[in-house]
Amino acid sequence: MIKRIEVFKENSFSDKNMKKFLLHDSSDFKILNFNFSPGQELPIHAHDIDGQLSIVVLEGSGEFLGKDNTSFSANPGDVLISDIREPHGIRAKSNMRVLVTIAPPI
Amino acid sequence: MIKRIEVFKENSFSDKNMKKFLLHDSSDFKILNFNFSPGQELPIHAHDIDGQLSIVVLEGSGEFLGKDNTSFSANPGDVLISDIREPHGIRAKSNMRVLVTIAPPI
Repeated sequence: MIKRIEVFKENSFSDKNMKKFLLHDSSDFKILNFNFSPGQELPIHAHDIDGQLSIVVLEGSGEFLGKDNTSFSANPGDVLISDIREPHGIRAKSNMRVLVTIAPPI
Repeated sequence: MIKRIEVFKENSFSDKNMKKFLLHDSSDFKILNFNFSPGQELPIHAHDIDGQLSIVVLEGSGEFLGKDNTSFSANPGDVLISDIREPHGIRAKSNMRVLVTIAPPI
């Protein structure tokens, strides 16, 4: 199995909601793209299961969110790595494209 | 566990070799950044083990490489997903930053 996905062509932006695009889901990992318009967010959340995730900023800027209202700036090339059971989220300041990888997949 | 890594600040380019930077290595996945100068490549290779990998282009452009000399253009936001046992590689045309995620980790 080998495939190429042009994420910038596959997904768009909406003023109403973040736009989600599933790239891949296998027994090894799940890969999703989220596009946010300014002010949109993936609210802080956590799941009580094993595993880790990464969030990679492909374009645009905003903030990674952590527990106790912590935040870290999120710019192109920045990567957040977190246990799935650790609170995590993201908020966009500009149009923002991120890639989320979850292993093992939820 | 939660951490942020500013990949663009952590790794540089070299005229001699691609520059490798390990972001993360856990029982869930391994995440690496490779920076290529024009003409540098990760030659086509494969490992005879289970698992999959993704290669995400963060910056710059080049080509994803597959078996039988196939190639696909590789631009920012493009993602290659491959079985680890399937031949895969990458070649840079410009300065190019990619992120490689391997699950389960090698």
